[in-house]
Amino acid sequence: MIDFEPTAEQQELKARVESFVRDKVIPFESDPRRTAHGPTDDLRDELVALAKAEGLLSPHVSEGWGGMGAGHMTKAVMFEASGYSMLGPITMNIAAPDEGNMHLLDEVATEAQKERYLKPLAAGEARSVFLMTEPSPGAGSDPGAMLTEARPDGNGWTISGRKWLITGAEGAKIGIVMARTFDEAGEDIGASMFMTPLPAEGLRVSRVLDTMDSSFTGGHAEVELDGLKVDGDAVLGEVGKGFRYAQVRLAPARLTHCMRWLGAAQRAHDIACGYARERESFGTKLIDHEGVGFMLADNEMDIHMSRLAVWHCAWVLDQGERGGRESSMAKVICSEALYRVADRCLQVLGGMGMTRDTEVERIFRELRGFRIYDGPSEVHRWSLAKQIKRR
Amino acid sequence: MIDFEPTAEQQELKARVESFVRDKVIPFESDPRRTAHGPTDDLRDELVALAKAEGLLSPHVSEGWGGMGAGHMTKAVMFEASGYSMLGPITMNIAAPDEGNMHLLDEVATEAQKERYLKPLAAGEARSVFLMTEPSPGAGSDPGAMLTEARPDGNGWTISGRKWLITGAEGAKIGIVMARTFDEAGEDIGASMFMTPLPAEGLRVSRVLDTMDSSFTGGHAEVELDGLKVDGDAVLGEVGKGFRYAQVRLAPARLTHCMRWLGAAQRAHDIACGYARERESFGTKLIDHEGVGFMLADNEMDIHMSRLAVWHCAWVLDQGERGGRESSMAKVICSEALYRVADRCLQVLGGMGMTRDTEVERIFRELRGFRIYDGPSEVHRWSLAKQIKRR
Amino acid sequence: MIDFEPTAEQQELKARVESFVRDKVIPFESDPRRTAHGPTDDLRDELVALAKAEGLLSPHVSEGWGGMGAGHMTKAVMFEASGYSMLGPITMNIAAPDEGNMHLLDEVATEAQKERYLKPLAAGEARSVFLMTEPSPGAGSDPGAMLTEARPDGNGWTISGRKWLITGAEGAKIGIVMARTFDEAGEDIGASMFMTPLPAEGLRVSRVLDTMDSSFTGGHAEVELDGLKVDGDAVLGEVGKGFRYAQVRLAPARLTHCMRWLGAAQRAHDIACGYARERESFGTKLIDHEGVGFMLADNEMDIHMSRLAVWHCAWVLDQGERGGRESSMAKVICSEALYRVADRCLQVLGGMGMTRDTEVERIFRELRGFRIYDGPSEVHRWSLAKQIKRR
Amino acid sequence: MIDFEPTAEQQELKARVESFVRDKVIPFESDPRRTAHGPTDDLRDELVALAKAEGLLSPHVSEGWGGMGAGHMTKAVMFEASGYSMLGPITMNIAAPDEGNMHLLDEVATEAQKERYLKPLAAGEARSVFLMTEPSPGAGSDPGAMLTEARPDGNGWTISGRKWLITGAEGAKIGIVMARTFDEAGEDIGASMFMTPLPAEGLRVSRVLDTMDSSFTGGHAEVELDGLKVDGDAVLGEVGKGFRYAQVRLAPARLTHCMRWLGAAQRAHDIACGYARERESFGTKLIDHEGVGFMLADNEMDIHMSRLAVWHCAWVLDQGERGGRESSMAKVICSEALYRVADRCLQVLGGMGMTRDTEVERIFRELRGFRIYDGPSEVHRWSLAKQIKRR
Repeated sequence: MIDFEPTAEQQELKARVESFVRDKVIPFESDPRRTAHGPTDDLRDELVALAKAEGLLSPHVSEGWGGMGAGHMTKAVMFEASGYSMLGPITMNIAAPDEGNMHLLDEVATEAQKERYLKPLAAGEARSVFLMTEPSPGAGSDPGAMLTEARPDGNGWTISGRKWLITGAEGAKIGIVMARTFDEAGEDIGASMFMTPLPAEGLRVSRVLDTMDSSFTGGHAEVELDGLKVDGDAVLGEVGKGFRYAQVRLAPARLTHCMRWLGAAQRAHDIACGYARERESFGTKLIDHEGVGFMLADNEMDIHMSRLAVWHCAWVLDQGERGGRESSMAKVICSEALYRVADRCLQVLGGMGMTRDTEVERIFRELRGFRIYDGPSEVHRWSLAKQIKRR
Repeated sequence: MIDFEPTAEQQELKARVESFVRDKVIPFESDPRRTAHGPTDDLRDELVALAKAEGLLSPHVSEGWGGMGAGHMTKAVMFEASGYSMLGPITMNIAAPDEGNMHLLDEVATEAQKERYLKPLAAGEARSVFLMTEPSPGAGSDPGAMLTEARPDGNGWTISGRKWLITGAEGAKIGIVMARTFDEAGEDIGASMFMTPLPAEGLRVSRVLDTMDSSFTGGHAEVELDGLKVDGDAVLGEVGKGFRYAQVRLAPARLTHCMRWLGAAQRAHDIACGYARERESFGTKLIDHEGVGFMLADNEMDIHMSRLAVWHCAWVLDQGERGGRESSMAKVICSEALYRVADRCLQVLGGMGMTRDTEVERIFRELRGFRIYDGPSEVHRWSLAKQIKRR
Repeated sequence: MIDFEPTAEQQELKARVESFVRDKVIPFESDPRRTAHGPTDDLRDELVALAKAEGLLSPHVSEGWGGMGAGHMTKAVMFEASGYSMLGPITMNIAAPDEGNMHLLDEVATEAQKERYLKPLAAGEARSVFLMTEPSPGAGSDPGAMLTEARPDGNGWTISGRKWLITGAEGAKIGIVMARTFDEAGEDIGASMFMTPLPAEGLRVSRVLDTMDSSFTGGHAEVELDGLKVDGDAVLGEVGKGFRYAQVRLAPARLTHCMRWLGAAQRAHDIACGYARERESFGTKLIDHEGVGFMLADNEMDIHMSRLAVWHCAWVLDQGERGGRESSMAKVICSEALYRVADRCLQVLGGMGMTRDTEVERIFRELRGFRIYDGPSEVHRWSLAKQIKRR
Repeated sequence: MIDFEPTAEQQELKARVESFVRDKVIPFESDPRRTAHGPTDDLRDELVALAKAEGLLSPHVSEGWGGMGAGHMTKAVMFEASGYSMLGPITMNIAAPDEGNMHLLDEVATEAQKERYLKPLAAGEARSVFLMTEPSPGAGSDPGAMLTEARPDGNGWTISGRKWLITGAEGAKIGIVMARTFDEAGEDIGASMFMTPLPAEGLRVSRVLDTMDSSFTGGHAEVELDGLKVDGDAVLGEVGKGFRYAQVRLAPARLTHCMRWLGAAQRAHDIACGYARERESFGTKLIDHEGVGFMLADNEMDIHMSRLAVWHCAWVLDQGERGGRESSMAKVICSEALYRVADRCLQVLGGMGMTRDTEVERIFRELRGFRIYDGPSEVHRWSLAKQIKRR
């Protein structure tokens, strides 16, 4: 039966996160440790300790491994509330890529792998990286073009290749490496995922890229894999099934992005509304100019639609479905609608919007990335069109 | 608890309407009695008889007055399914303005008024008009500018003025007239609604307008009120509360528009998808051109979002709330998104899209009106902005 | 040297057309002979006589054949002024498809063909059709898919096939048929164009289509070619070069569409501005609502840009260049920008916009077709992208 | 007579600037002296020396004062070519705000003022600031709200107030201060402009703002005026006519913005085209995906339109007209169209687009500011609507 009211428990969690973010996290937004390559690990550790003290760390992880075992709908309300500050998700240990990596390990890893990797991650004691994307001509939006290779080496594997735009690489303690795998006979047996502690010999962060966005701890880096050695038990799940696991990770990871950005867009909107109610121009409050009021009305509609799309997809995932189509739609709808929100907020703020005196400037830059990260809109539209064709 | 699954009963009703529309209604789409001023009353009567036979007539009316007493969510699924043919809502007696008028009577009328007006309406034996809009300088989007006047006359009232864009006037048997009301002392005591049987002396359909849309029986007309006399019991509800009742009618009426148009847009999309899968151009199926596939993907997202917005608002109304904000948002979101859908479908069909050889051309024209009827987007944005200001 | 001022002669011609259209043509806009399939031939003849009397008939035709030999820039100013009424181009004999057909004959036909076909066309005594487009699976946007065939027959040809969306077929006296041509050996030797007087045995207008637009005399028809016989001298230019001549016709024809629609959009804009200055809503003139004022400002920018794009392309053509890229850009820019103008005007007019009480409703419907006729936007974007690739 | 061909001299200047920018300026784009607050003065000086050596410094200044006396159309071609590198305008001393300040001095200043201020500016030996914008509740988009005050003090003036978003303040040697002026009697006699050498007692750069854009030397700063003393001959033009002079400066300054950004957008487009021709995805070059090809086609149309709008407005200004309406239209058209270009380029580049590995990321950030600086789009639309109303 159609119902748009979260459970009492979900509402209580939402309220807890909201007040936590407002009271404890937002004050850190003026902290100088927010660098062009993201908050420093030092700042991150301080924030994580706050969430741990509040009992709000890693809610998405299984209860057995230190989390709350929150389902997708519960994540929807908590992550949105967390995203209200760009520092919220880092604080609660639910930022990309760690959140998705934990989800993947929770679903696919052996008990031993969980003990070794998931436990410290869930406790916020380590950060992790997901090494999939490659520089041209390797795997960008098209994972099939992967060039990194893993070849058998004793009872383990040796991995070589180049990765690129690897979020959080600088300072990470755990890596998940995606590589095209070959058997003893040199036959390509499909892509596999390999776990590795970091730092590791044979894996080098060659460069942290300067990027428009600046909210991920460690930034985005170029990584050289030059004979990285991993043991046989480093394989996550089965050899050759890397793309299948990537799917396990990607659909929900795509959706949690939507949840977090939804909160960020709401923040930008609240700032713009506050400004429009106060600032006067040409003899009247900004908000009384229809040119401004209409932008704010459009924001409310875009936020409303995005929230509905997120909730719907979360519900689909909670029913145990793959949700490929729904998460593609949610990704495109949210990334484009929320970006429009940020863009309008910036415009409403005028010159002020271009400055870092409000969080809007930062939210705008981050949301620009959201239209590209985890699959550009074009790739999702292409995928949706293919589904229409087959139907 | 968040749930996106309609009840079993709702799903069964949806399925019944879907097969009814496909099997019984769509064959009438090539009927020449679909004129530039809408389907003739003759065609309407034939269609209504079909719905009556199927037990699908007037589902929105209270059970006591001949309907199913369907709540807003139940209407959401049934009306969308009905709208899949532009003839569906007329067939099931849930087209504007009758559907909203019945809803209004159901909520506000006395038993005697219901017996006299609601009963034949619900039975599909009569059509009705809602006489509110006036030509310039009267009440257009701004009801406050109303010029039509009702003045005391014996134990009744005499009404004079001009109405315009009155949907279904030609052939209607029942009228609801909105007029600025004056007391014996000549004091303006607010707007009131008056019931009148039709035809009536003092009320003349002076002209049926040629309009872009052509799906409302009776078309849209100009009506002259020149001393229309009504009894004291003709007042709907209380004297002077006309705008309040207009609100009772408008928010749900706005939403049922969204429901019906949603079905129409889905129809256009299905036609465009079918065409794109078959038609070849430049050596490949149309759907394999990204330029076309992306448009169809956007359609699916716009339809998805519109459906979520409708369901959400229906749920709000079912909770007993006024839903002013939610219905304004749903109206703007749906009218603009579904219009984009129709526009893209027409473009995908190319030259064929401009012809009446498919229903897309008609759906496009009707949806253009949807962005204006029941409040242009601009009025809703303005109203949303005012709410943001006050918050 | 960059100059944006038309010559004195061009300005004088523009002024003449403007006053002619306002004084003589616009009064006919309420003529009931404007049917759903275009103005009747009777109305057309009456209008053409007016232009002849005014010395404004067929200005684009060579002076030797009854016109003024107007260059592209001169056409730009005259055709825009003519398009200010949807009846203007018909009146001045510069409407599609006749205008383009005359241009083609002027460029390619033999003296004898000109005497036989161009002369009566230029004098406004006959209308013509261009039979290229075919129903699926034939030549739609992709002329390469043409299925109509011409085969040798004595010293002439016999042509069979089906054409579709043939503008002005009903009542036309001259036809230009495009057909895939075969030699005696049955070898495909390319497409050719054939002239034929009409009516003709073997060519049948099987149906006039109902379409959204309604401004072309004769409407758009389906035509059956079943053994149409033409003489050897019926070939326009050389056998097998039909596509080359189609290009000669298409680039300028595309641009004259832009010129005429520009005038129509200007008309819609003037109507909307007039309405917005007069109509009050919520206590103030519509134009004082930024929501309306901004739409009108956007109209002015879209009209400004369209005019610049037309002028630029006309200048390129006047330099003797093919202008394929420029005319594709002008077609997409103008069709989309001018459509937006019409759409905004309709929205500004509100309910009035949906009625035929102003010309805006009609202009909107016609402009919707403009985004498809003479190559949908998608085909032009595709062609522009191919040029970018090659560069 | 309409002509779209620049003069031979203009074409030669364009070619000279193009090769200068490519050969001499672009190599500096990887210089680490490009900071978050713009290129350092050190880097600027090095670049300016290059332009001086090439004879391409300050072409817009009168010949008598060290420039070429380039008219608006000549500026159009030179500035666009210069903008092809974000460092080009700084190199050629035609960046904001210096370019507009020199233009203002050239038009309004006394010979003595020109000798003292224009000469070193034109020689590239000094940078200048235009102190107009104020923090809330002062003069933002609405100059009428100005709060800074100048009061008589001996034979000069004392100025106090706060300025904000003052471009290039850090390191500037010359200031133009806009202030509301009072006479001896304390009467407000209108706004005036005052020249001042910098640094100066009573004028303090209190903070350089962190902003999204980063291409202006000195960045954007907050400036405190606390009893700044200027002599009587410091007044630019006449007392009380400050807004009139602001207009002298603003329309052309607005247009030169368009010229420079046009070059920048062209650069972004060229980068995106190059990438799309090389990068493969899903088995084919990016450019062969219509989803990408259409974006690039749209870029070409947006660039084409922007160039035509710039040329048209430059021509209007060269005719000696004020060009208020034309420059407003050009500002809105260019800022929005060129921003769309940058946005599409970034999207085509995917993850790479978010990095500083190409200039696109920077161009995107700068162009976002362009939609706000020198009047946000909304203020120009508002002004255009007012003109429509009056017409």
